[in-house]
Amino acid sequence: MSSNKKARTQPPYELLYWPEIPGRGEFIRLVFEATGTSYKDVSNESKDGMNAVLAIKAEDLTIDSDGNPPAFAPPALRVPGEGKEGKALVLYQTPSILLYLGEKLGLAGEDEADKHWILSHALTALDLNNETHDTHHPIAVSKYYEDQKGESLKKATDFRDNRLPKFFGFFERVLKGNEEHGQGKYLVGRKLSYADTTVWQVLDGLKFAFPKELEAREKEFPTLFGTFYPNVREQSGLKEYLSSDRRKPYGMGVFRHYPELDRQ
Amino acid sequence: MSSNKKARTQPPYELLYWPEIPGRGEFIRLVFEATGTSYKDVSNESKDGMNAVLAIKAEDLTIDSDGNPPAFAPPALRVPGEGKEGKALVLYQTPSILLYLGEKLGLAGEDEADKHWILSHALTALDLNNETHDTHHPIAVSKYYEDQKGESLKKATDFRDNRLPKFFGFFERVLKGNEEHGQGKYLVGRKLSYADTTVWQVLDGLKFAFPKELEAREKEFPTLFGTFYPNVREQSGLKEYLSSDRRKPYGMGVFRHYPELDRQ
Repeated sequence: MSSNKKARTQPPYELLYWPEIPGRGEFIRLVFEATGTSYKDVSNESKDGMNAVLAIKAEDLTIDSDGNPPAFAPPALRVPGEGKEGKALVLYQTPSILLYLGEKLGLAGEDEADKHWILSHALTALDLNNETHDTHHPIAVSKYYEDQKGESLKKATDFRDNRLPKFFGFFERVLKGNEEHGQGKYLVGRKLSYADTTVWQVLDGLKFAFPKELEAREKEFPTLFGTFYPNVREQSGLKEYLSSDRRKPYGMGVFRHYPELDRQ
Repeated sequence: MSSNKKARTQPPYELLYWPEIPGRGEFIRLVFEATGTSYKDVSNESKDGMNAVLAIKAEDLTIDSDGNPPAFAPPALRVPGEGKEGKALVLYQTPSILLYLGEKLGLAGEDEADKHWILSHALTALDLNNETHDTHHPIAVSKYYEDQKGESLKKATDFRDNRLPKFFGFFERVLKGNEEHGQGKYLVGRKLSYADTTVWQVLDGLKFAFPKELEAREKEFPTLFGTFYPNVREQSGLKEYLSSDRRKPYGMGVFRHYPELDRQ
């Protein structure tokens, strides 16, 4: 167990994701860590955990023994006792898992408007995450970067010149619009939500993947990079996690540092 | 008003989206039409509706006069009276709007597991929608197709050979896993949900964009194309809508028919 502060009051949450990389699993981990919630990171913690990840997306699975549908892709969340007839619940798709955990763990806002804005902002950050992935895989996810490098150079140029400022400018405006309540530290309301952790993770990954571009851009978006980013990093729970060995280094996942794709 | 069956009991829903194309607005329209819910399709119904669409994404907007954040992009949903302090609520991001309306209009399942599976399957269909868009814009959304045609030919080949069968196979398995309740007609439970309307719309768009590929593939996925697709099309509300002039033809939106990108 990664933390056991709430082990006695929470169901035994199990994260099913690829081992050794942050990837899309990291958005889920941050929610657990920010709330001090116990969870099992199955493929990182157990020898045969990888088989459990593969099982939920097996190409002959129509329904599991607990009545759950297959997952299109990891991450998935398994929650024993919370499914149909008291069996295990299995959810897939990052935003759906974030909504579920956000509501259980108090990171989904205080009313219906907050709940939907938090989901919307998280979805927008996950769109940026996907576009980041496509900078090194613009043609085919099944092929190597080296086999689509020419196209990647074009895609990354457009991404840096047009897409990054559009997304950063949007989040900067959301933070400013909520400044009265969130003081530039929170996107929605007066406290941390899973929109904050999700936007933060994408910014952090972009700093790794495009260090020159990000350094050049940061001063254009002072609330986002000067207030929001450091504040989320220092949140109780997240601060300890980010310096622990549970936080996996970036590598060959969504966020990759290819110097030729960065600002020259 | 597009329909007024529930006009007296529902708030006056307003869809804010580009005029004249189905696009991502269509996922929202199908939810209204399938439930016989009155809504205003702002840019298609009023002369200055386009200004309302542009206003929610204006690049200097931080918060509107009702306390709503800006929208990253259309579609957005405006609901007078349902926001903070009884003001208008504005939501953006297709999945967030679908969840909101699904819960209000009875298309979001019967329990928490259903609710999250429906959201997850809809998100997966919307991922396929995005990948479809990228077949004709693999490098830059801001450039013309003609300026990225070489890359589009490569992207579309991978999309047809690898991605379509992966998505179709997944939805086929979900339908089979739920056959006891849904009889191949519904992805989750015993009745129509916004997962069904969303998956259906993507299949319908793909039939327009890649007619040869789809014709060749249909027999591989008999539940999806033989049972599910025609059943959703015949649902009360949807059937009438699809033959009305409110249903806009496909054109130069997400789903485009470029014969050179289809199976040869």
